[in-house]
Amino acid sequence: MKLFIKNGTFITMNGNETIKDGYMVVENEFIQYIGKEKPVENDYDQIIDGSNRIYMPGLVNTHNHAAMSLLRGYADDLALQIWLEDYMWPMEAKFTSEEVRWGTFLSILEMIKGGTTCFVDMYDHMDVVAQAVETSGMRACLTRGMIGFGGKEVQDAKLNEAKTFAKNWHGKANGRITTMMSPHAPYTCPPEFIDKIVQAASELQLPIHTHMSETRHEVLENEKQYGFRPVAHLQKLGVFDQSCLVAHAVHLTDEEIGILKEHSVHISHNPGSNLKLASGIARLPELMKEGILVSLGTDSAASNNNLDMFEEVRLAALIHKGNTFDPTAIPAVDALRLGTIDGARSIWLNDVGMLKEGMKADFISVNSNQAHLLPKSDVISHIVYSASASDVVDVWVDGKQLVKNKELLTLDEERIKYEFNACFERLTT
Amino acid sequence: MKLFIKNGTFITMNGNETIKDGYMVVENEFIQYIGKEKPVENDYDQIIDGSNRIYMPGLVNTHNHAAMSLLRGYADDLALQIWLEDYMWPMEAKFTSEEVRWGTFLSILEMIKGGTTCFVDMYDHMDVVAQAVETSGMRACLTRGMIGFGGKEVQDAKLNEAKTFAKNWHGKANGRITTMMSPHAPYTCPPEFIDKIVQAASELQLPIHTHMSETRHEVLENEKQYGFRPVAHLQKLGVFDQSCLVAHAVHLTDEEIGILKEHSVHISHNPGSNLKLASGIARLPELMKEGILVSLGTDSAASNNNLDMFEEVRLAALIHKGNTFDPTAIPAVDALRLGTIDGARSIWLNDVGMLKEGMKADFISVNSNQAHLLPKSDVISHIVYSASASDVVDVWVDGKQLVKNKELLTLDEERIKYEFNACFERLTT
Repeated sequence: MKLFIKNGTFITMNGNETIKDGYMVVENEFIQYIGKEKPVENDYDQIIDGSNRIYMPGLVNTHNHAAMSLLRGYADDLALQIWLEDYMWPMEAKFTSEEVRWGTFLSILEMIKGGTTCFVDMYDHMDVVAQAVETSGMRACLTRGMIGFGGKEVQDAKLNEAKTFAKNWHGKANGRITTMMSPHAPYTCPPEFIDKIVQAASELQLPIHTHMSETRHEVLENEKQYGFRPVAHLQKLGVFDQSCLVAHAVHLTDEEIGILKEHSVHISHNPGSNLKLASGIARLPELMKEGILVSLGTDSAASNNNLDMFEEVRLAALIHKGNTFDPTAIPAVDALRLGTIDGARSIWLNDVGMLKEGMKADFISVNSNQAHLLPKSDVISHIVYSASASDVVDVWVDGKQLVKNKELLTLDEERIKYEFNACFERLTT
Repeated sequence: MKLFIKNGTFITMNGNETIKDGYMVVENEFIQYIGKEKPVENDYDQIIDGSNRIYMPGLVNTHNHAAMSLLRGYADDLALQIWLEDYMWPMEAKFTSEEVRWGTFLSILEMIKGGTTCFVDMYDHMDVVAQAVETSGMRACLTRGMIGFGGKEVQDAKLNEAKTFAKNWHGKANGRITTMMSPHAPYTCPPEFIDKIVQAASELQLPIHTHMSETRHEVLENEKQYGFRPVAHLQKLGVFDQSCLVAHAVHLTDEEIGILKEHSVHISHNPGSNLKLASGIARLPELMKEGILVSLGTDSAASNNNLDMFEEVRLAALIHKGNTFDPTAIPAVDALRLGTIDGARSIWLNDVGMLKEGMKADFISVNSNQAHLLPKSDVISHIVYSASASDVVDVWVDGKQLVKNKELLTLDEERIKYEFNACFERLTT
């Protein structure tokens, strides 16, 4: 299969490069050519006129709990601990694999159509999640989130489940699925359980993904319970000796930033969720200045409440300017990097996130002939400051087209909505 | 003309009322009935099945400079004074009435299709702006913004132009257009010029609209130049003795909040623009606690960079939570009120902004059968935390349908884009 796109505008994320009236050739799953010069070959299976389209790498969402779309709008405007313990957990306790299946499918539907080509998911019933990803054609890094309440036997069962899942699915779906090991958070996992998970991750040679330092409350409680703030606590438990992606990291001291840098810990910044749950505003400018690898996540639809990665990119570009009185904090192209190439690198993928020869063809097109994306001035600015998920027209992952003219090709959208609504009815009656 | 909508979900903005499977009757420009009970009459000119639609009041954008859409993406990530003086003003100096016409039309196109039914515009060549509003069918409160540089003669000419415009257009287009008088800002208008504008507003019995206390720099310079911060300065000049809408009001002391309250000054909060220009985060929770009438504005597309009022509503709901660590700050329904009914009240319109019998029929429909707006739980939450301009399907203003199934009925979209792009080419070559 050989695809030729002509006359397109390409945001490559190779530095701040933008190619206007350019050309791209995709052969099977790889980008074979991209550039300003028209390639000489003309033996293509498909030719697309890319006029009025901006092509860019698919967005990478590095923190989500996809099934929780079932709880979108169920409880808002509450503090994280109350929201989690009094609202989310009791409802989630009712989730069977059916709820996880259709909740995840609905999120996948929203994400793909909105230009997200790859996501991180931490949840349970992960076989169902992996099957949904496989069917959809998306790319994902999946992990069974382990909450350590309920004693040693429950913990052991969860750990075995997490290990089995991680082994079974790592590298599957033509390499589109990778896996991680996940203690849910220092406040939900006793140290000895985290210790075991770290050992398992080391044996399996898999990265660790966890929540960390999301709220002030969490940091204070950690100090009270264990004598250390979360960063030092996890460091002592060897979490950072593994490859590690932490979500949130809102409340960090300079010293903690130093520790995270030293251990090459990756951070998934979740600005929308952090604002909505009033967790605070992460120190993104400082983290980036230190060269820490930061990416963006929506968190679940229960705390965001959409899965629009354009919005997370925009929030990352906007809130740190307003919060620091520095209009040069997080320039547009840097924010877009967090949502694309740095998202891919955050989950140790080196062959997606950029439009470049030899990279896998995970990319999207945006309709640029709309009022809010005119005039044809700075397209990176338009994507960051003005575009949204609904501007996405076409989506390819691994060289395969998943969305064509806003229609999802791999899944039955009406069936997903029907089953999802039925799950919600069951949960709430 | 009598329109009947059945089986719709209605967010009325009458308190936090939501009517599911409800009915609305619109006769000419007025809402004749809205409720849960099916009305007995059945002699309608048009019947719409509102299943899978959320109906709500059109959004009211209380601060904009519509023609500046021509400068979208022209200069980003710069401080307000540099952005304004080195980039915006030199480009705006090239604007003729043609640039104002097509820049304004493009903004109107974006706003109407995105569910904004009424906007405030402060600019020049205002006859052209008013004509565009009249043709489009939108509602607007328009004002010739006066920058006082250039000496007394220039000031007098501007003031005369502003007065003539305000008199000619106030109440026109079936009452859809109202007018105000606008000194641009305390930092661009000498006190004696502001004084004259206040006198004119008093004579014409029109409100005053101005920028105020947008940046720390502005506040400090005002103190240095005039011995007072902007609030006291404008108070002394009698600005607050008129009905008054100030844009921004980011940097306020408790005492200043007291002065604004005492004078019933209305505030247009512009969260997106304030973040992007790094002006800071306004004290919205305190302003609302004091009962000051606050509404929302996008500011121009040069500093936002879109005119999506759903995004301003969402930012108002989100950033103050994150900034104050209080998840109950600005609940969803309060944020939506700022963007609808309080927007209308902010510009002294008492017959729009709410779906209620006797109110004018300025309303929109949103397609609720989309992944990011499911499940059918809390629709106000979905509108505030998940919806965007692109979810709008139909728009009515004054009982007249302006957008039908995402197509604008009153203007030629392709012609507008063509002329707009031509203006941009002329400006930049």
